[in-house]
Amino acid sequence: MRDVCVIGLGLIGGSVLRAARAHGRTAWGTAESPGDRAAAHAEGFTVSESLPAALESADCRDALVVLAVPLTAVDEVLMLLGKHAPLARLTDVVSVKVPVAFAVRSWAPRARYVGGHPMAGTAESGWHAGDATLFTGTKWAVCGDTGTTRSDEQRAVDREVFRDVLGLALACGAHVVPTTAAEHDDAIARISHLPHLLAAVLAAVGAAGGPLSMSLAAGSFTDGTRVSSTRPELVRAMCEGNASALLPALDDALGKLGAARGALASTRSLKSTIDSGFTAAGEFRQSTEAAHTEVTIDLRAPEAMSALLGVGAAGGVLTELRCDTVLARVPVPPGRVRQNLPRRSLPE
Amino acid sequence: MRDVCVIGLGLIGGSVLRAARAHGRTAWGTAESPGDRAAAHAEGFTVSESLPAALESADCRDALVVLAVPLTAVDEVLMLLGKHAPLARLTDVVSVKVPVAFAVRSWAPRARYVGGHPMAGTAESGWHAGDATLFTGTKWAVCGDTGTTRSDEQRAVDREVFRDVLGLALACGAHVVPTTAAEHDDAIARISHLPHLLAAVLAAVGAAGGPLSMSLAAGSFTDGTRVSSTRPELVRAMCEGNASALLPALDDALGKLGAARGALASTRSLKSTIDSGFTAAGEFRQSTEAAHTEVTIDLRAPEAMSALLGVGAAGGVLTELRCDTVLARVPVPPGRVRQNLPRRSLPE
Repeated sequence: MRDVCVIGLGLIGGSVLRAARAHGRTAWGTAESPGDRAAAHAEGFTVSESLPAALESADCRDALVVLAVPLTAVDEVLMLLGKHAPLARLTDVVSVKVPVAFAVRSWAPRARYVGGHPMAGTAESGWHAGDATLFTGTKWAVCGDTGTTRSDEQRAVDREVFRDVLGLALACGAHVVPTTAAEHDDAIARISHLPHLLAAVLAAVGAAGGPLSMSLAAGSFTDGTRVSSTRPELVRAMCEGNASALLPALDDALGKLGAARGALASTRSLKSTIDSGFTAAGEFRQSTEAAHTEVTIDLRAPEAMSALLGVGAAGGVLTELRCDTVLARVPVPPGRVRQNLPRRSLPE
Repeated sequence: MRDVCVIGLGLIGGSVLRAARAHGRTAWGTAESPGDRAAAHAEGFTVSESLPAALESADCRDALVVLAVPLTAVDEVLMLLGKHAPLARLTDVVSVKVPVAFAVRSWAPRARYVGGHPMAGTAESGWHAGDATLFTGTKWAVCGDTGTTRSDEQRAVDREVFRDVLGLALACGAHVVPTTAAEHDDAIARISHLPHLLAAVLAAVGAAGGPLSMSLAAGSFTDGTRVSSTRPELVRAMCEGNASALLPALDDALGKLGAARGALASTRSLKSTIDSGFTAAGEFRQSTEAAHTEVTIDLRAPEAMSALLGVGAAGGVLTELRCDTVLARVPVPPGRVRQNLPRRSLPE
């Protein structure tokens, strides 16, 4: 069981530290906020006073460093990591993956980096909001590529660290979604950043209707605007940090909404828009309710990483790690995964 | 207590019939669907076999006719009403008000019509989905104008029937929001029809991200797409029926979303969009949590209707009817209502 060094003790970092210790790991952390450091220390956790000290311990013990600071603070931490633990096993929990991968390449190019993103709430923040069970039953995206698209920088992901991150996420109670950095960022733009933008727009259009509109507002408005109460600096950081992936998703939404506008004005029909939304909602419901089949993947096999990425792309998750094999749960009918994956890829 | 004749025994009509009887009223209904008629009859309700028979009873007993059919069936029913109960006291529960007002003017011009719209759910349908308590604690918009904007047709709303509709809505357990047909339709476009459109667009953009997007989707996507599972023909009927009011709301949303797109592409900043959404969400929360003051309005006073409309426009509701006076609950600081309304407008 790999030691864990958590940089940043807010909601996510603080929960990782708690979950790692609860799992019996040697784990320590540090944070810029003296309040978060003191609170964690008061609860009996090992807390380093300085970032260099925490990183040097990680270097010395070959621990997995978990970068759990906001995107805006990533560069600064990586600069120090490049100095104090240049060869560190490294993951992160930031909600965008390509920008972090580029920052790693810039500031700590020799770090053994595997990106991660636990899909846990952002409404609360700080050490006190955290919980050892925050990740139980949630999904945790883990990158199976190095996240850089420049061909001279492309190289295979570090499988040993991939296994470390997979192990930590599973130990935290999450199911792992293997993916690439770019595919992750595109997906998150569609299913998290765009919803936040649409909620903000809907809240503003509703409020522009004045007190009568607010008074009549019920289910559909309440649902559609719920996340617009999230702290604006958090929403901005995640949306703006994923601008390149958010723009095409936003254009997709603008295109569909513009088409609805045109159809409503010209033929008074919203058939195409409403019907395709209903069909998509059905697909989403089916994806959450679909039957699953289990597949075992040998992490030592040469094609293991492409098999893992196939599981994520098909909507599947990794649920268990046993030595060098991982158990995957894949929706059926699983499409390309079922065709590509051997039923059991363990060596006979 | 005015007798009640309900035309259409689906979710809303069926619930009105149940609530009216539970309130001790003489009430009967009819429906096109033999299944709904049979089910209502089996539960001991008075059900007319034919629409003309139901209307003739209403005519004979000077009952309040409640039109509870989909917008697409309104013309047909009104044609028969014009023939069998031309002077009927008439209200409706359709989710748009201006189009129904025009239909009444066309097909039953002598009917004493006061538009209504209970803000109750649409996800389920049919007699069996109904409930005598469906409206408890909800809001029910009641029109204080005749809903026509052509000056040669403008006339004051029938106050006696306004009182009837108010009494029925309160008897059903709802709070009444007095409004005009046009203001109602504008507000509903913003807080109900636009949310349904945005949900449909978001569901489609999310599904276009494939199984990986669906797999990673969590809170913000689930909230933002919830109503896209509503039966598409219901969503289309209400949105398309309110096209004139929905278009400007949709343009407002397109403008804000387009501005966000421009800002993200040029300066990578979403500050304006996210901050205004957050502010609007705060206004909405405040409007639901605001302190209230009570105002009594004498329905016989000449300025009564404008005072009532002021209550609705300020986000207030009518909560009780006592003979000819009505109790209003108005948010404080109530803005223009408090300035316009006497603290107590009962004759001294």
